[in-house]
Amino acid sequence: MSNAMQPPYYAVIFTSELTDDVADYGAMADRMVELARQQPGFLGIESARAGLGITVSYWRDLASIAAWKADAEHRIAQRLGRERFYRYFRLRVARVEQDSGFTRDPAG
Amino acid sequence: MSNAMQPPYYAVIFTSELTDDVADYGAMADRMVELARQQPGFLGIESARAGLGITVSYWRDLASIAAWKADAEHRIAQRLGRERFYRYFRLRVARVEQDSGFTRDPAG
Repeated sequence: MSNAMQPPYYAVIFTSELTDDVADYGAMADRMVELARQQPGFLGIESARAGLGITVSYWRDLASIAAWKADAEHRIAQRLGRERFYRYFRLRVARVEQDSGFTRDPAG
Repeated sequence: MSNAMQPPYYAVIFTSELTDDVADYGAMADRMVELARQQPGFLGIESARAGLGITVSYWRDLASIAAWKADAEHRIAQRLGRERFYRYFRLRVARVEQDSGFTRDPAG
């Protein structure tokens, strides 16, 4: 994750729960991350799952998010998600206004 | 998670990696969630960890977030986080502008 992101930029917060029909889900999710990284305006992505899955992707602006949403291969994945993989999801688009962090001194 | 959240509202995106010194971390994290739920302006919280931890909490406005950040017990937890529990964290405050979702038809 780059530290070069300076607000304002955008975050897409995607939270989900999976169905039991997830045989091909991992491969599809990996492919979508690979594809997202190639999009104009992509800044980064972070993901964790423990029952509930949370993926946050970061983008330069709303136009970049709209273009990624409309990507042809991504649209196929979105349809598969609704038809097979997701029991539930929620998608939020948010404008990041403050960004701060902490990294432990390796010697500390 | 309430579905009653109508944009605009705010999300605090907290991503972290833990140190090896995490004996009391779970209890502290649980207590902070319990305490956050009691704050004015709190709307919800979602959390997942798989190496990287992502916690997203939702708030009515920036004033609610500032008040939670300044809470006395929360400040002690913040200090413990820097001194013991976190190898790394990043905290983003973002204004949620779009919110959509999908819930599978139980019969589907």
